[in-house]
Amino acid sequence: MAAPSAPPRARALLQQCLASRLQVKPPEPGSEAEWVEIQRGLVIYICFFKGASEELIPKMVNTLLNVKLSETESGKYVSVLDLPGNLLIIPQATLGGRLKGRNMQYHSNIEKEKGMQLYSHFVTLCEKELAANMKCAEAGVVVKYGTYGNRQVLKLDTNGPFTHMIEF
Amino acid sequence: MAAPSAPPRARALLQQCLASRLQVKPPEPGSEAEWVEIQRGLVIYICFFKGASEELIPKMVNTLLNVKLSETESGKYVSVLDLPGNLLIIPQATLGGRLKGRNMQYHSNIEKEKGMQLYSHFVTLCEKELAANMKCAEAGVVVKYGTYGNRQVLKLDTNGPFTHMIEF
Repeated sequence: MAAPSAPPRARALLQQCLASRLQVKPPEPGSEAEWVEIQRGLVIYICFFKGASEELIPKMVNTLLNVKLSETESGKYVSVLDLPGNLLIIPQATLGGRLKGRNMQYHSNIEKEKGMQLYSHFVTLCEKELAANMKCAEAGVVVKYGTYGNRQVLKLDTNGPFTHMIEF
Repeated sequence: MAAPSAPPRARALLQQCLASRLQVKPPEPGSEAEWVEIQRGLVIYICFFKGASEELIPKMVNTLLNVKLSETESGKYVSVLDLPGNLLIIPQATLGGRLKGRNMQYHSNIEKEKGMQLYSHFVTLCEKELAANMKCAEAGVVVKYGTYGNRQVLKLDTNGPFTHMIEF
């Protein structure tokens, strides 16, 4: 029997996409909504729990960018760096919910201020890793990301969502 | 400290959608792909682990159809039955993956034959519950679902994916 494991400090959900579009600024009187968009690549939904800290970020980024979940034209699975594919990062605090009766509770989620810092660090490190990767730089793949705390209005077009969850 | 909990027997991932479209038959020479489509409602990705059995299904369906995660026009959260909203059920074995090095492994996933039976039972019970609910029947909401074992090609349009995970 497995030993009781420590509660996770972060949860990431991964979905492969052909294209994906995320609203980063809602429409307001006099201004239209703003969107970011990626073509083929990886959508990363991310949620931090209480106890998560900065030293977790390099491990998370390293794992998520190197796990072999991206399908090549020939059907082989490689990392998003090796595809090379684009990244769309979505802050998704709801992923930290736990069922209580008929409602979800979010007591384990990190405080907003701290979560915002970790999220920002996570995005920056993803950008650095893609920029430092020759294949990615040559292909011109990009990192796009949602605004922490916003409603994440998403349009997703997949060739098989291949939904995976990885906890840290 | 919490007692070590038993490993989950099923994992469901929920996303709210404005509209969603799932391929249920891939294109073949001489025939186009077939799709099912729902308008506003709930996308349920579902994965069964070893040890899951039939008696789990009523509890799962009851929980998922009654958890208050569907947003009304006025911003209140109600169940998908109370919305009333449509259901799109997607078999998603990849949700059961565990990271091993740079690869995902699926050793905890249920055997295919057994998973197919549970999935079929799950879909049938969702259909029954919606049919038995007066609000749903009057609104004409529907249950659509993917084919177990197929590649799930998905197009999703959300007003906030509000991604939640519930384990059983």
